[in-house]
Amino acid sequence: MPMAATHSSNRKLHDAIFEASKACQDAAAIHGADAVTNATIGVVLNEEGNLAVLPTMEKVYRSLPMSELSAYAPITGLPDYTNAVIDLVFADNKPDGYFAALATAGGTGAIHHAIANYAERGENVLTSDWFWGNYNIICNETGKNLSTFKLFDEEQKFNIADFTNKVDELLKKQNSLLIILNTPAHNPTGFALSENDWDQVLDVIKSRVANKKISLLVDIAYIDFAGEKNATRKFMKKFSNLPENIFVMISFSMSKSYTLYGQRTGALVGVSSSKAVIDEFVDVNKYSNRATWSNINRGAQALLIALSKDQAAKKIFENEREELYKMVQNRADIFVNEAEKCGLNHLPYKGGFFISVPADDPVAICNELHKELVFAVPLKLGIRIAACSVSSKKISGVADKLKAAFNHFKN
Amino acid sequence: MPMAATHSSNRKLHDAIFEASKACQDAAAIHGADAVTNATIGVVLNEEGNLAVLPTMEKVYRSLPMSELSAYAPITGLPDYTNAVIDLVFADNKPDGYFAALATAGGTGAIHHAIANYAERGENVLTSDWFWGNYNIICNETGKNLSTFKLFDEEQKFNIADFTNKVDELLKKQNSLLIILNTPAHNPTGFALSENDWDQVLDVIKSRVANKKISLLVDIAYIDFAGEKNATRKFMKKFSNLPENIFVMISFSMSKSYTLYGQRTGALVGVSSSKAVIDEFVDVNKYSNRATWSNINRGAQALLIALSKDQAAKKIFENEREELYKMVQNRADIFVNEAEKCGLNHLPYKGGFFISVPADDPVAICNELHKELVFAVPLKLGIRIAACSVSSKKISGVADKLKAAFNHFKN
Repeated sequence: MPMAATHSSNRKLHDAIFEASKACQDAAAIHGADAVTNATIGVVLNEEGNLAVLPTMEKVYRSLPMSELSAYAPITGLPDYTNAVIDLVFADNKPDGYFAALATAGGTGAIHHAIANYAERGENVLTSDWFWGNYNIICNETGKNLSTFKLFDEEQKFNIADFTNKVDELLKKQNSLLIILNTPAHNPTGFALSENDWDQVLDVIKSRVANKKISLLVDIAYIDFAGEKNATRKFMKKFSNLPENIFVMISFSMSKSYTLYGQRTGALVGVSSSKAVIDEFVDVNKYSNRATWSNINRGAQALLIALSKDQAAKKIFENEREELYKMVQNRADIFVNEAEKCGLNHLPYKGGFFISVPADDPVAICNELHKELVFAVPLKLGIRIAACSVSSKKISGVADKLKAAFNHFKN
Repeated sequence: MPMAATHSSNRKLHDAIFEASKACQDAAAIHGADAVTNATIGVVLNEEGNLAVLPTMEKVYRSLPMSELSAYAPITGLPDYTNAVIDLVFADNKPDGYFAALATAGGTGAIHHAIANYAERGENVLTSDWFWGNYNIICNETGKNLSTFKLFDEEQKFNIADFTNKVDELLKKQNSLLIILNTPAHNPTGFALSENDWDQVLDVIKSRVANKKISLLVDIAYIDFAGEKNATRKFMKKFSNLPENIFVMISFSMSKSYTLYGQRTGALVGVSSSKAVIDEFVDVNKYSNRATWSNINRGAQALLIALSKDQAAKKIFENEREELYKMVQNRADIFVNEAEKCGLNHLPYKGGFFISVPADDPVAICNELHKELVFAVPLKLGIRIAACSVSSKKISGVADKLKAAFNHFKN
């Protein structure tokens, strides 16, 4: 007899990443860690295969007084934290309008709140067909459905036509629509919308909203691994002076940007031309904060505050992060160059932790790749390769092995 | 125009604790901190008014390698953490049955999951009329309603009659029922169910469940401030061999027990005579973990593991906590003794952070008390005094001032 409520009792996670990672561990136990290539892990490992921790982050964290680690933070977050987050999210590209930010349990918590509070129960949330699987889990958990548009057209460019069709389709059935775009450094492809793509997206939203409501959540979890600070944030300026019934949220995470994955600290930022919309945003998300986790890790918030206030430490920290970004970018470049040489089709990578290769049967290709002791994550539409965690030495040759795995199934 | 979804847009927290605390800060700014008594704060402050941090907890936390603070934990928690939690929750009173535990964002996160997953949408959850206000917030957030039974009868003993009536009433309308009991060291009264109260509660549940389903959540957030380890946990043995359609959950929190409020780490523990019920418990709560916060603070989990494995440190730590418990208990004793001397009625306090005094108009009494520069929290049914945060010197006299405030409104 199930004891859980009817809406919950059949829920069970299918964890493709865990399974792929387990297969790699099993192989490493037989062949040795040096012999296997684990392209499943979603954190930055250094060239020696250990978790990369930014030294200045550690130094500042270690210097925090215990009271900052022990005490509760306010429900919405420490004010200095949420203010610093707004500055970090936009850099020099702050749009005109009203703002607020609330601390959340990592980027996940921010996305949870956006979906919980900005989509009607039983209705559809729209994102691209290549998406972080957790969007779907959060929709199920909060009683929403996830719809997708094709991220790429036949030339592997942003598919504005399918985006437009899906927006039109859903607005026929719904009075409000939440759209999630994960850009730049999209997980799992590394894609980013260009300035022109953004203009088209906002034109579609503005021309379709009429007397309905559209909320847009931009997931920027990987933005600090996508390029120069202001270049990667330039699109945010376009959120200036939107109509009141178009609301923009941005989910911020300390996980990747501070190599502080395990501390579960992020934020949800809201931007609107209406003060009332921002007041409501604070009220409903403060309520959700209280109801789901009460308040957020104060230590991680204090770390971000300290790093924001100490200009000297901040500069060293940003340089260290720049080095980490370049290390990941260099690995991705190796893969992409080799893929192009051997004729392996991959999706347009512009930055971030992952590169994706489309496939009809990703599980079969990944299993074939296991014979070469290379382990990647089979998604629904293709294979995800983690540039963040595979050393430059090991990532060299992966594209050719992947191409050979595809060839194995040809004829 | 509200942009939030219809189920969210009117949500706004009314924070009585925050307001009372603000009034105290304003008074302290005028009269000086020494002149005011702040009985609103829900954390242990030492006799000097500073946050009490257990020294061995700090020492062990500071010794953790940065990788333990930086890396992600598994979705359900580190296995050594959840195993240690099960041992800590039950001590020598482990009931017969199957168990599992999952890491959650503090005690709040555990309660959130229990309500989200073990009550039907639109139906009622039952708790006592003196209750931690967040139970109601969580019910609203997850689409449930909160019903209450009278915690005390006219003799201020556990009101089994009203408990029974409310269970009967709800089971007429619902096929399943989630009951929340916060004991021992109940917030806000300090009450604890006796062994006899527990027998009666379980008799009612067993005699009423028939072919329906009853889940029981025991909130033990303050248990380590309630008395001797095994004496306070003796009731847990009664959860042995319950029918499969009675499911027991326990919410565990590191906030108070480790003076680690701000790290947001707790757990939800399940106990059942059915392995299938426990498997389902893990599946649905793992799903909820992934959907709400992905995973939980690894550093705090690593701390608890380290403290559990190092027997010498554990012993010193437990002695330090015992001292903290005695300090709080001593303050509560001062209040209770003075209340009895001056004839101030208070609810039966047996341990924990808070003592409560019933009142018809708690706000008026609290405002009257402000004239004496004493600040407490007005709840719906009475006034909450924080023994955890008021020094023994300052708590002396509070009962008399409270009695005088009541007298002010007599005639």
